[in-house]
Amino acid sequence: MRFGVNYTPRVGWFHHWIDFDAGEVARDFDAIRELGADHVRVFPLWPIFQPNPTAISAAALGHLDRVIELADERGLDVAVDGLQGHLSSFDFLPSWLVSWHDRNMFTDEHAVAATARYLEALSRTAAAHPNAFAVTVGNEVNQFTGTVHPQPHPATTPEISAWLDRMIGAIRTGAPGLLALHACYDASWYDDTQPFTLEHVARQGDLSVAHSWVFNGTAQRFGPDAFETRAHARYMVEVARAFQTDPGRGIWAQELGAPRNVLPAESIQGFIDGTVEQLAEAPGLFGITWWCSHDVSRSLGDFPELEYDLGLIDEHGRIKPEGRLVREAVARAKEQTPQANPSVIDLDLAAVGGRAALAPGGDFWTAYMDQARDGGHPRIRLVESNAVRAHDEVPAKEGSTADA
Amino acid sequence: MRFGVNYTPRVGWFHHWIDFDAGEVARDFDAIRELGADHVRVFPLWPIFQPNPTAISAAALGHLDRVIELADERGLDVAVDGLQGHLSSFDFLPSWLVSWHDRNMFTDEHAVAATARYLEALSRTAAAHPNAFAVTVGNEVNQFTGTVHPQPHPATTPEISAWLDRMIGAIRTGAPGLLALHACYDASWYDDTQPFTLEHVARQGDLSVAHSWVFNGTAQRFGPDAFETRAHARYMVEVARAFQTDPGRGIWAQELGAPRNVLPAESIQGFIDGTVEQLAEAPGLFGITWWCSHDVSRSLGDFPELEYDLGLIDEHGRIKPEGRLVREAVARAKEQTPQANPSVIDLDLAAVGGRAALAPGGDFWTAYMDQARDGGHPRIRLVESNAVRAHDEVPAKEGSTADA
Repeated sequence: MRFGVNYTPRVGWFHHWIDFDAGEVARDFDAIRELGADHVRVFPLWPIFQPNPTAISAAALGHLDRVIELADERGLDVAVDGLQGHLSSFDFLPSWLVSWHDRNMFTDEHAVAATARYLEALSRTAAAHPNAFAVTVGNEVNQFTGTVHPQPHPATTPEISAWLDRMIGAIRTGAPGLLALHACYDASWYDDTQPFTLEHVARQGDLSVAHSWVFNGTAQRFGPDAFETRAHARYMVEVARAFQTDPGRGIWAQELGAPRNVLPAESIQGFIDGTVEQLAEAPGLFGITWWCSHDVSRSLGDFPELEYDLGLIDEHGRIKPEGRLVREAVARAKEQTPQANPSVIDLDLAAVGGRAALAPGGDFWTAYMDQARDGGHPRIRLVESNAVRAHDEVPAKEGSTADA
Repeated sequence: MRFGVNYTPRVGWFHHWIDFDAGEVARDFDAIRELGADHVRVFPLWPIFQPNPTAISAAALGHLDRVIELADERGLDVAVDGLQGHLSSFDFLPSWLVSWHDRNMFTDEHAVAATARYLEALSRTAAAHPNAFAVTVGNEVNQFTGTVHPQPHPATTPEISAWLDRMIGAIRTGAPGLLALHACYDASWYDDTQPFTLEHVARQGDLSVAHSWVFNGTAQRFGPDAFETRAHARYMVEVARAFQTDPGRGIWAQELGAPRNVLPAESIQGFIDGTVEQLAEAPGLFGITWWCSHDVSRSLGDFPELEYDLGLIDEHGRIKPEGRLVREAVARAKEQTPQANPSVIDLDLAAVGGRAALAPGGDFWTAYMDQARDGGHPRIRLVESNAVRAHDEVPAKEGSTADA
């Protein structure tokens, strides 16, 4: 099981791509190494890296190149995300997609072709380094569609399937030997209006990727110390696994953290220990990558309050108690052996009423959590009732990605 | 009369702030000097310079510093624009204003305070150089409000008055000795839904600033060789002057060009000669600044077609025929003496039906152009009929800025 952190530069946050300072990155990576991490996930900002559809910044790619090199010098492997896209409440979309240009990032052929060129270039930069191991399409790109985003890019599920094929194909072209991935936030698990589906999560790219955030209603509903709150990341992993057509496909808990808006200080250790232990028991877990490396500096404005305290290292570069707790929990977890799920629970998605039933407090969620609390996390077996088949015969939404 | 160009970097357009190359800027300025220019107007990109409300990029300010220095070494003065904002169809707004953050750039106190800090910092950078002479709030910031922008920031005219006071105040604080200006596109002249008014143009900041673009319907309606088309820039100057409370206030034709979508090759010389000659005759003209220095490279995508050919210098760095024509027209103009307007025409804005009457083909426009064609550009005398006074007594829109 791999362990790493999502790299949030200590000085300047992701705006460090503009004021790039290799010395600061080196210092940050030294501190990250002390956490016991074996890898970092890094985040280019799309408008900086591809300011025009036909122009990819040589300076920005050069900075990325240097970041990967500095990681290698410290024994850290690197996963690169492409389309940021969305980070900690801020959206970064290039000017050629928005306002007057108003291109749909998922369905406009000109935009899609330009995006693919960017991902290919980024992947080529990554692939030149022995320590780069993965390229992800982007951080939670499903934030930009569905009904929740204030300025969504509407797309159907088949359109998303085709878009993901293009993006993952671009990564494979640029970086043939690396893992090609995509990553969704939990609307893909819990929200039927979200066109990125669990089939996408479980069947496109080389691993299933889960991002677990208990500020999604879980901690609020069940409490900071509840079984459900500590089980949430593992639950997302099990739900994703259920939709896999390849049972041996790995699953990466690529992003999870301990948000202080819903977890008081006294709940942090239990949350970290419980979350990491339950994840580490999961069969086929690729790794855990904590969000995030460094606290956002209080000198930077306009972040939601919870975003300032998610780091394992503080804004002065000192490892926080949370950093020690995660390091210790991961060390224990590496001694654990993944365990076969002790029981099975059936999921008939259509019969249970769609993805809302999987959300915190939903019918399936409740049945699953009851079974997990009593006897350990069950394996979820996907079944299709007659209701599902009938549903599939009307213009398919979920069903259309079954062969993706 | 000053003559300069709006500086559009030959390599990378305004994205050169990311891939900054002082050697390229030096080469560009050498070519601009050959045009006979005495100044350049330069355009920071807001999201690069102020990526967070509390963070202004030291690297970006350093690049601006170097640009002004390189201009000085070549005998070029510099005017700096702040909020870009809008350039050649592309919008560049920082992430902390848009989507989830959704702050109104004109009325949200937090956003306004952050914007003022940025303009002050930019102005301080400019003021450190002997060749910096002006700071403009931003390029056509009125593009971001009114009813035309696809994602407008709604504001009332009094709110715009207050915002301009703050922004111009920030410039004065940062650069006490420099001209503090703001610049609007022609909706402020022609569109009653535009909250930036002619009073703002004529009464806030140190000069009145006009941007003249005959693709606004003028060339389409009257033809590329029409009197109206060549008189348009001068007309905007005269309309702005009419709204001045200080008759001696200077007027800067800060942005005008020869757009090839409405001007065929054979009309270019007549357009340049006629436009420059009529402007140069205007009393109190501060200067003419052509848009733009360099053609946009055909290697960059998604610009409206007309934007690729507006340069006086081509994308390989060679002076174009348009460059020689403008240089010659300006040389002749500098021998001209500004002439008192030979006649007067009254403008009763309320009685004539508002700003629409000033637009190409409107009632006032037509009366003005007939008089100008026959005997030279008249002076526009603003009169207020009883109709206006009555109008002023209802909740004032235009009137409320009279004391600005």
